[in-house]
Amino acid sequence: MPKNAFYAQSGGVTAVINASACGVIETARQHSDKIGKVYAGRDGIIGALAEDLIDTSLESATDIARLKHTPGGAFGSCRYKLKSLDEHRAQYERLIEVFKAHDIGYFFYNGGNDSMDTAWKVSQLAATLDFPLTCVGIPKTVDNDLAITDNCPGFGSVAKYVATSMREAGFDVASMARTSTRIFVLEVMGRHAGWITAACGLASEAEGAFGHTPPHILLFPEIPFDPDAFLARTGECVARYGYCTVAVSEGLHDANGKLIADMGVKDAFGHAQLGGAGQVVAQLIKDKLGYKYHWALADYLQRSARHIAAQVDVEQAYAVGRAAVEQALAGKNATMPAIRRTSDAPYAWEIVVADLKNVANVEKKMPREFITPDGFHITEACRRYLAPLIEGEAIPPFVRGLPDYVRLKNVAVVKKLAAFEV
Amino acid sequence: MPKNAFYAQSGGVTAVINASACGVIETARQHSDKIGKVYAGRDGIIGALAEDLIDTSLESATDIARLKHTPGGAFGSCRYKLKSLDEHRAQYERLIEVFKAHDIGYFFYNGGNDSMDTAWKVSQLAATLDFPLTCVGIPKTVDNDLAITDNCPGFGSVAKYVATSMREAGFDVASMARTSTRIFVLEVMGRHAGWITAACGLASEAEGAFGHTPPHILLFPEIPFDPDAFLARTGECVARYGYCTVAVSEGLHDANGKLIADMGVKDAFGHAQLGGAGQVVAQLIKDKLGYKYHWALADYLQRSARHIAAQVDVEQAYAVGRAAVEQALAGKNATMPAIRRTSDAPYAWEIVVADLKNVANVEKKMPREFITPDGFHITEACRRYLAPLIEGEAIPPFVRGLPDYVRLKNVAVVKKLAAFEV
Repeated sequence: MPKNAFYAQSGGVTAVINASACGVIETARQHSDKIGKVYAGRDGIIGALAEDLIDTSLESATDIARLKHTPGGAFGSCRYKLKSLDEHRAQYERLIEVFKAHDIGYFFYNGGNDSMDTAWKVSQLAATLDFPLTCVGIPKTVDNDLAITDNCPGFGSVAKYVATSMREAGFDVASMARTSTRIFVLEVMGRHAGWITAACGLASEAEGAFGHTPPHILLFPEIPFDPDAFLARTGECVARYGYCTVAVSEGLHDANGKLIADMGVKDAFGHAQLGGAGQVVAQLIKDKLGYKYHWALADYLQRSARHIAAQVDVEQAYAVGRAAVEQALAGKNATMPAIRRTSDAPYAWEIVVADLKNVANVEKKMPREFITPDGFHITEACRRYLAPLIEGEAIPPFVRGLPDYVRLKNVAVVKKLAAFEV
Repeated sequence: MPKNAFYAQSGGVTAVINASACGVIETARQHSDKIGKVYAGRDGIIGALAEDLIDTSLESATDIARLKHTPGGAFGSCRYKLKSLDEHRAQYERLIEVFKAHDIGYFFYNGGNDSMDTAWKVSQLAATLDFPLTCVGIPKTVDNDLAITDNCPGFGSVAKYVATSMREAGFDVASMARTSTRIFVLEVMGRHAGWITAACGLASEAEGAFGHTPPHILLFPEIPFDPDAFLARTGECVARYGYCTVAVSEGLHDANGKLIADMGVKDAFGHAQLGGAGQVVAQLIKDKLGYKYHWALADYLQRSARHIAAQVDVEQAYAVGRAAVEQALAGKNATMPAIRRTSDAPYAWEIVVADLKNVANVEKKMPREFITPDGFHITEACRRYLAPLIEGEAIPPFVRGLPDYVRLKNVAVVKKLAAFEV
């Protein structure tokens, strides 16, 4: 009797994490001699701890295929980091207990570096307890900050969304600058790594120290914010082009590490209001240079925008899901399928095997050589790296003018164990 | 010798105003026996006052055709309302003087109700001065608030963008609600009319008093904000679905007419910070109900998102541009091509002739019967009206992963007159 598999989505979801789920489930179904049912954790790893498992075998092949074009996390995700093995061994033992009760022999964990750490720890404990479990991580993060893999599924689609949005808003502002708005600021995700802000830079058609077309200025979390240099550059830009467009990371901070978002805005009770680095820098321009501004906060729109996903991102997300199952079937354990780039142009890539322990808890920031010396834009090296990742359109089906996304039935597996306090 | 035409874009630009420009220019080129060159005002009507005209005849047929898929205002637009004829007759006389100097016999003005008023006044003055000028307005506004016409070119594409974004973000929040964000608020445009907020409601697949799928709550400028009722509905929604998604108009206000955006947030110096109705209502939920929130501010992204424009909107924008030229050639004056709906399903429409004086300065708000009795969602009647307007995808060409938009040469016509203080 083949062992069942457990699959869970972890952390912030993306436009293509369900494509990875699709890759896992479709590939497992092709190997029904070796893998029984695929159980998904409802709301991520919490579903395993609470023994709240979803029986994906009850979903039709058509609906599973529709996952490939549906954003969000089809089984639910969570922000829940398991503590260290020493600190909270009971949680890990509970996982093993649930896996044992449901005859689970494969653990597929789809997430970022925290999740790769969890998957690695689970594999260690299973070995210690002599429980036969194959653990394979599946990379996912819009932040693009995982080690080993050349890029992370989920990032390319955000990159395509923010670059497209920046270009489009740039055409808008350019039209209006003479009598109205001269400044447009787009705030994008990225607390520690500036990859998404860098991707905005792809919209700028010109080369050189800073863009001649939007976005003119990029503000990275890797570069401490220097208000004077920023204002000088903004003024120069307005003088030259009549307007200035800026992309800013939510995690922008000053030389002391203080978040820019914390600096400006207070709520009605005088509490500092988190969020809004974009508004703070826009208001700074208004206060110091007097220009009228608009700002946009893409927030969840950027990471759920499946309608403008990159084809290559969808393909890679699917491929790492499929490869996870294939690695497990090939006897790998404590590994993660990683993307290896073999050529920039034409872009070529392959899936390789990475060890979880080398991916776990490592954060890959932007290399300094990807940012121009003045700190305000991306270099040609960065453009060479980023450009292939937004290639191709993967337009979802539309019904009555709106994208047609699937909602699965998500039927629960009958519980066999006593309740467990998560 | 045929007379030249003058075309100008006015007010906030849209994803499809250039499709109207394309309709004007391509149609005029087809009638070169009756219309000479099409001159465009650089930055709108200011270009006419300043005698800063763009010679569109120097643009290739290919580039003019590319206008159909390019957002923003290709010739520049402006927020500049001509004063009344009595108050500032010199401005109107200057327009006539410029038109006379450049042998202009046709005036096409592409904008909202202010602009229709201007076009009407120009036609009156031309008649008074015995200057032969045919004036035709071309409707455009994302606000969808023009009278007579069933809908306004520019609105359908914003509607499609916000409904798509709301649906996508809804999938995201639903995935995360158990351990993280339970509230998502999207702030959209609409100072006085709630059409764009209403369009968000199209994303909700369910019928009835309020959505079972996102968005769960809509906050319209037509309905004074009632914090208690709103919080009760939000709590009910979280209890039922685990999360709650809200779309809010920037112009949301209370029963006294005070803007909600003005209520919450102050800058570092304690000044009230305009903008941010979305953040204020999100923070209200956090303060009173304790739920973690995310909010997004679509701002210019919504009205420039040509990548997700509605096909029907592109067709109508082009059609009103073409019809403007045809009306002018048919001897109409002081008119505007309006869209008349002949059937909801299947959707059918035609272009009719409206009189500018009936469109000028009238603002069409949401009818009360389009909003549910509780004020928090749209009715089936509203859905019937809105649904056809977002139909069809009009994906622009992509190059290297990004939409390929045209930048025209915009060569200036040699000036013939003395300078004029705008």
